[in-house]
Amino acid sequence: MTQTSATNDRMNRLKDRLREIGDLQGAVAVLGWDQATYMPSAGAAGRGRQLALISRIEHERATDPELGKLLEDLLPTVLDLPPESMEKALVEVAWRDYIRAVRVPAEFVSRLEEHAANSFETWKRARQENNFGLIRPYLERTVELSRELADFFPGYASVADPLIDYTDEGFTAAYLRELFSQLTCKLVPLVDAVCRKPEMDDSCLRQEFALDRQREFGEAVIRDLGYDFERGRQDLAPHPFMTRLSGGDMRITTRYNPSFLAKGLFGTIHEAGHALYEQGVDLALDGSPLGTGTTHGVHESQSRLWENLVGRSRPFWIHYYPRLQRLFPEQLTAVSLEEFYRAINKVSRSLIRTEADELTYNLHVVIRFDLELDLLEGKLEVADLPERWNELYEERLGIRPSTDSDGVLQDMHWYQSLVGGQFQSYTLGNIMSAQFFQAALASHPEITEEMAQGRFDTLRNWLVSNVYRPGRSIPALKLVERVTGKPLEMQPYMRMLEQKYGELYGL
Amino acid sequence: MTQTSATNDRMNRLKDRLREIGDLQGAVAVLGWDQATYMPSAGAAGRGRQLALISRIEHERATDPELGKLLEDLLPTVLDLPPESMEKALVEVAWRDYIRAVRVPAEFVSRLEEHAANSFETWKRARQENNFGLIRPYLERTVELSRELADFFPGYASVADPLIDYTDEGFTAAYLRELFSQLTCKLVPLVDAVCRKPEMDDSCLRQEFALDRQREFGEAVIRDLGYDFERGRQDLAPHPFMTRLSGGDMRITTRYNPSFLAKGLFGTIHEAGHALYEQGVDLALDGSPLGTGTTHGVHESQSRLWENLVGRSRPFWIHYYPRLQRLFPEQLTAVSLEEFYRAINKVSRSLIRTEADELTYNLHVVIRFDLELDLLEGKLEVADLPERWNELYEERLGIRPSTDSDGVLQDMHWYQSLVGGQFQSYTLGNIMSAQFFQAALASHPEITEEMAQGRFDTLRNWLVSNVYRPGRSIPALKLVERVTGKPLEMQPYMRMLEQKYGELYGL
Repeated sequence: MTQTSATNDRMNRLKDRLREIGDLQGAVAVLGWDQATYMPSAGAAGRGRQLALISRIEHERATDPELGKLLEDLLPTVLDLPPESMEKALVEVAWRDYIRAVRVPAEFVSRLEEHAANSFETWKRARQENNFGLIRPYLERTVELSRELADFFPGYASVADPLIDYTDEGFTAAYLRELFSQLTCKLVPLVDAVCRKPEMDDSCLRQEFALDRQREFGEAVIRDLGYDFERGRQDLAPHPFMTRLSGGDMRITTRYNPSFLAKGLFGTIHEAGHALYEQGVDLALDGSPLGTGTTHGVHESQSRLWENLVGRSRPFWIHYYPRLQRLFPEQLTAVSLEEFYRAINKVSRSLIRTEADELTYNLHVVIRFDLELDLLEGKLEVADLPERWNELYEERLGIRPSTDSDGVLQDMHWYQSLVGGQFQSYTLGNIMSAQFFQAALASHPEITEEMAQGRFDTLRNWLVSNVYRPGRSIPALKLVERVTGKPLEMQPYMRMLEQKYGELYGL
Repeated sequence: MTQTSATNDRMNRLKDRLREIGDLQGAVAVLGWDQATYMPSAGAAGRGRQLALISRIEHERATDPELGKLLEDLLPTVLDLPPESMEKALVEVAWRDYIRAVRVPAEFVSRLEEHAANSFETWKRARQENNFGLIRPYLERTVELSRELADFFPGYASVADPLIDYTDEGFTAAYLRELFSQLTCKLVPLVDAVCRKPEMDDSCLRQEFALDRQREFGEAVIRDLGYDFERGRQDLAPHPFMTRLSGGDMRITTRYNPSFLAKGLFGTIHEAGHALYEQGVDLALDGSPLGTGTTHGVHESQSRLWENLVGRSRPFWIHYYPRLQRLFPEQLTAVSLEEFYRAINKVSRSLIRTEADELTYNLHVVIRFDLELDLLEGKLEVADLPERWNELYEERLGIRPSTDSDGVLQDMHWYQSLVGGQFQSYTLGNIMSAQFFQAALASHPEITEEMAQGRFDTLRNWLVSNVYRPGRSIPALKLVERVTGKPLEMQPYMRMLEQKYGELYGL
């Protein structure tokens, strides 16, 4: 065999192996989707075994030393390829995935999973009984295990760095701390100013809305946005999510609340945003690790872009509000477009992250981010966490939880997984969403006008070409720079918020 | 390690391996269920790869020489255990599965699968275009491949024996030929006698029936029969089936025809019958190869028992007909119970097996069984098959297909799988269903009266205790003998048919 044909042969073998790993991940996604949507209750035990087994097989293949050998042989051959070479990106991304997988011993993974399962069960009771003491020893162990996991990737500046890198590759604690503290400094006074104004009335959203009509409307909207039902479907699930079952099958789930319109509607658009991203990845990358969305932060930028920058905008409702009124004449005929627009953008100091408005949402997130850094870096003891949580809420949001269930116990993240890397993606996504959106508007100022006509092609096509198509072949920070011509910055996001809420609240 | 603890250790390792093989089969079932129910069209390619990969992994494990070694070591240790020992049954059944799997080379399996996929695609065209010539070379190759498969299991009396053994272990071509010819000799004159009588009127079934009400009724019925929705669910699918996703998850699918009531209703009961069997297998066998229904014939005996012996009986409708009338007052108020009962039991000479009535159904099946034997044994050339098919229809059913699409091309079996072992289960199931049902009635004569009150516990509990609970631990022929006290015989089935249709048609 010549040098080139040996390399081609290796590259083909690599692609075969990676395709199989992807297909196993896809099978896991199918099993998980069914578990969350249609599986009967008695199926849980068997499904748990099936998921564990196929995940283990996937892990065995992802850490197969022969895969490592193939990659080691291929790495030098792609060094001189141009940066935009897909084969170069493929080998490099596969190598990072491989290293990440082999560094963590299987023994540790099962120890962590077992602990996480026990912790999760205990957390459900602790939250119900408002008893942080119950979960405290578990959380202490979770912090230890999180540090142990980080230590498999030595050479970090902050112990949180390897954990952040899991979900938002390329980001560090130091970078995010700086970015988020800039944001907080601007956000806190803006929220203060807004909350000194008279509270908005969102009672029009809090009426009875027939579920089948909510669903009809939600499906019509996401179809217009470009969600392709030939390559996906939407079902109901208690905790909505988007999942990629294969390159032709990206599904979303949603949930409607019969007495609060905003929840189901914006949740639907949010998940559809994730799916638009996945459906927009270049099909040529399908079956390889490049053929999916890049970091969680970029993913969240797309769910939030469609949910907030599109779905909570005035132009959007200029088009859709008359239609919504026709579907719910009894509830909405007497409510003007402007009243409706104000209701869906009502700001209030509240305790629960998942119910927070667009403006205060990031304050909730950054509190968690700061706390998990402090826990990991040993600056905060788990025992002192509830009190510190409440202090930060008072300090930044001006409101103090009266129970831990409405405080430190509200989110499942720390109790079913790790401490570290759990929250930054939400705010990173918001920041990126505005920077991407601003770039799209700069190229195509007609996007705003088109939204008011219920047309989203120009926006979506721009996102597909610039953000979606490359999949994982471009890392997040480089993607932002390439697409927007600037490094990641929080100004476009803050400016957008100041402008929108300044106008809404007459600041 | 002592002898015993070494054996215990081996037994545990065996069970672990078998559980994993079962879990992989369960995962395949989940992927298949989703493919047939909810998967969007563009998911087909990825799903095909996922299914092929996990099936291959399952096959690798099922043929792992270490599994063979474990079994070889364990076989002598279970020899002296009593016949009812579950460990003995486990080792013996697992050994048979292993031998069956290792005898067939992987190379042959892929060759067969590739041929089957091409044949299936060609068949769809051939049937549509009524062109047997198109599919003929494929079918010739299928016959060759079927013989080749049989030859991996030398020592047979008929080349069809190993193929029959795949689905109905323990049965041979000679045995079935004799059994089925006895049945045909009795059935042909009975059908003749019935068809000389005035045709029954089933127009009451051929009206418009709202799908949601059909579904409501079907679900209520199978719930009453004992189908446990906590351990399964029912969805719509173009080709209804039952599938076992795990020991706690046996699903059924159905399809309703808006202008023909019988199709969906009896189809639903049929699939529920399969599921009642699976749901009744001893939970202690879950996760082992014993923990599922035994042969196809026994499985079919249960779907047919519930569909025909229960669902098409007069007592059943004494209870359900008033309810059905209330659901469809416009269609059924003027139709008496007796008219309805006659309509659902209308006998007619027809061409299509899947639309045949209870009485003529077996004639359709036995024609196919005889033809596949002749093809395999070289007594019939594929070129002569359509003509021979038509002759047999004329001879036994008194009706001759005018096109091959309504004749030899109607069923997909031979065109997507093998020739041999494809059809006998249907008629075996019918024969067994009556023998089991007669034994149940002998123990519990109150079953008939209970059915007329919509109660099925006595019947179902008897079936669970006697037929369902043992799963695969008892082979079919032994099961019949143990449960009914007699070897398998066609007399109970024929007597039942003679009595029912004698009364219906006044013979």
